[in-house]
Amino acid sequence: MTTESKACSIAPVGAASLADSAFIRACFGKNKGRIPVWVMRQAGRYLPEYRALREKVSFLELCRTPEHVALATSDPIKRFGFDAAIMFSDILPLLEPMGFELEYAKGGPQVTPAIKSPDDVKRMVEYDVASKMDYVFGGVRAIKESIPQTPLLGVAGSPFTLACYAIEGHGSKTFDTVKQFMYKHPKAAEELLDKITSATIVYLQEQIKAGADGVQLFDSWSGILSVGEYSAWSLKYTSRIFEALKSYNVPRLLFVNNLAPYIHLVAELDCEVIGVDYRMDLAMAQRALPGKAIQGNLDPNILFCDPEEVSRRTRMMLESLDSHDNLIANLGHGILPPTPIESVSAFVETVHSFRS
Amino acid sequence: MTTESKACSIAPVGAASLADSAFIRACFGKNKGRIPVWVMRQAGRYLPEYRALREKVSFLELCRTPEHVALATSDPIKRFGFDAAIMFSDILPLLEPMGFELEYAKGGPQVTPAIKSPDDVKRMVEYDVASKMDYVFGGVRAIKESIPQTPLLGVAGSPFTLACYAIEGHGSKTFDTVKQFMYKHPKAAEELLDKITSATIVYLQEQIKAGADGVQLFDSWSGILSVGEYSAWSLKYTSRIFEALKSYNVPRLLFVNNLAPYIHLVAELDCEVIGVDYRMDLAMAQRALPGKAIQGNLDPNILFCDPEEVSRRTRMMLESLDSHDNLIANLGHGILPPTPIESVSAFVETVHSFRS
Repeated sequence: MTTESKACSIAPVGAASLADSAFIRACFGKNKGRIPVWVMRQAGRYLPEYRALREKVSFLELCRTPEHVALATSDPIKRFGFDAAIMFSDILPLLEPMGFELEYAKGGPQVTPAIKSPDDVKRMVEYDVASKMDYVFGGVRAIKESIPQTPLLGVAGSPFTLACYAIEGHGSKTFDTVKQFMYKHPKAAEELLDKITSATIVYLQEQIKAGADGVQLFDSWSGILSVGEYSAWSLKYTSRIFEALKSYNVPRLLFVNNLAPYIHLVAELDCEVIGVDYRMDLAMAQRALPGKAIQGNLDPNILFCDPEEVSRRTRMMLESLDSHDNLIANLGHGILPPTPIESVSAFVETVHSFRS
Repeated sequence: MTTESKACSIAPVGAASLADSAFIRACFGKNKGRIPVWVMRQAGRYLPEYRALREKVSFLELCRTPEHVALATSDPIKRFGFDAAIMFSDILPLLEPMGFELEYAKGGPQVTPAIKSPDDVKRMVEYDVASKMDYVFGGVRAIKESIPQTPLLGVAGSPFTLACYAIEGHGSKTFDTVKQFMYKHPKAAEELLDKITSATIVYLQEQIKAGADGVQLFDSWSGILSVGEYSAWSLKYTSRIFEALKSYNVPRLLFVNNLAPYIHLVAELDCEVIGVDYRMDLAMAQRALPGKAIQGNLDPNILFCDPEEVSRRTRMMLESLDSHDNLIANLGHGILPPTPIESVSAFVETVHSFRS
């Protein structure tokens, strides 16, 4: 029996029960049961199981091996009873089939060759995402086989965020190089964002076809844009991606790191869930996003308090909301590597007991 | 004739005309004439005069020498006709009379010894800001003598921003160490913020007494806080400072780098002007801040476009607003060192010609 046929034989059972899961119901604003909870970067360095795995394999090796991906993705589900799994992956490998090389150095990821001119954008190779990213889709299938009863989110970076890395070559606080490139070469910027958008659409469609029950787009860097640029350089492409996924009828989630300046624009986006970063008042976000589910937004640093304080602050967040039918509890940013395990348990238990 | 008596003999003349200046009128929402404009970090590395001065003196030497401060502060006024001057200074030297050492290394400023425990906060020395920062007040007097017809802003960092440097010891993207210290040691955090607040009040009062026509508080780092923490760790202390300056009847300006998540709280603050960073829609900020003047907010990266494009985008910003009586045009963040001079001229000229 191949992995694929196993997954298929399980899928109908999973699919039926998953539509009824707290997470999927909440995505569509129709959850009357316990509040679902997961945390961004839940398969990460704070987890002993993950650290043990990483002693055996490198980060890229892990990303490229379906059985490792399945293990990393399912470990936190088994330990904490999170209501959703998110495929272990990084957003940057999608740049590889477009002709970039990727290195995870100590100071952060390095993308080479960085885009310096409009010609560099033209030179970006014809990519075949469906075949070249196959290890990711294999990862999705392996996860569904391992934890078929847990809704699984597929993942991609937003086109603007990937463009930031392609132009800057690495992370930055303010991405001045990116902005100046885009002001100076508006046509090339559009071409670059178009190319990444097309690749991302195929990438996410294939993840859904492989079994992902929803997709989350990480817009890590748009939070350094003016409102006009956010609309022109980020939202336009996010919108195109979500449009292309609409017919799959799976929840489409967007996380913008620093949502507040753009929330009135995001409110118009055709998608199901908006991830709210830790800065913004969650109740205000809920009111500003009618018809959408919200996901968030405890500051990951709160998990360094003792478990009682974690519970108290989690309850404060939950109590501040007008409705819980459309809430997915989460952190407002990725969990930090030195986070104590018992804080994560306190967070999950507090959410789960809130409405039961 | 001493510097001080010269300044005094000029002050009454200056004071009378300054209340009528476009800048001061705009601060109080009563400007019917041309829109005032200045740019954050206008006395900085983008300016040939400043670079020439820095070839002769180090950064700290410049900060500590009144005649250099006066030169650095007045050069951009003379070149561009900005409507306000801002005292050349850095926000960190105020930490020195509190017992910290300061070094401007290549990777950014370093503060030692960084605060590691509540005991370190207790050990912070009794400070005598009025005497120990005298070189700054001498700088204010020297500037007023040099450019008496231009409104001069005094400067300080927000207590939270200074506390970030005191705890972290240097800059950071997310100031996790600061947040975790404050969660873990709420009493010590309060004591630290209290001490910095008291010092800041004296610091700004003395700047006003020396001749500053207004003060701007730079809250560079609160933009990484949740709304609740912004209120407890930043706004509370900003509010106390502004309260202590109220009786001087000079405009009190606050710049928060990443205002959007907190604007509903900032709207309640007793002060005259809110600086808006480049992320937020300026017209939305204006509507959300009734009774206040607004200052901002062109993205500094726009100044890397050609002068026509700078003018076009500046006009777009101005045209988006409901009123211009309470507007001080500025950038939405400090001007970047490689900025072309002709873009600054285009920005200033576009603002000045908009309503004339």
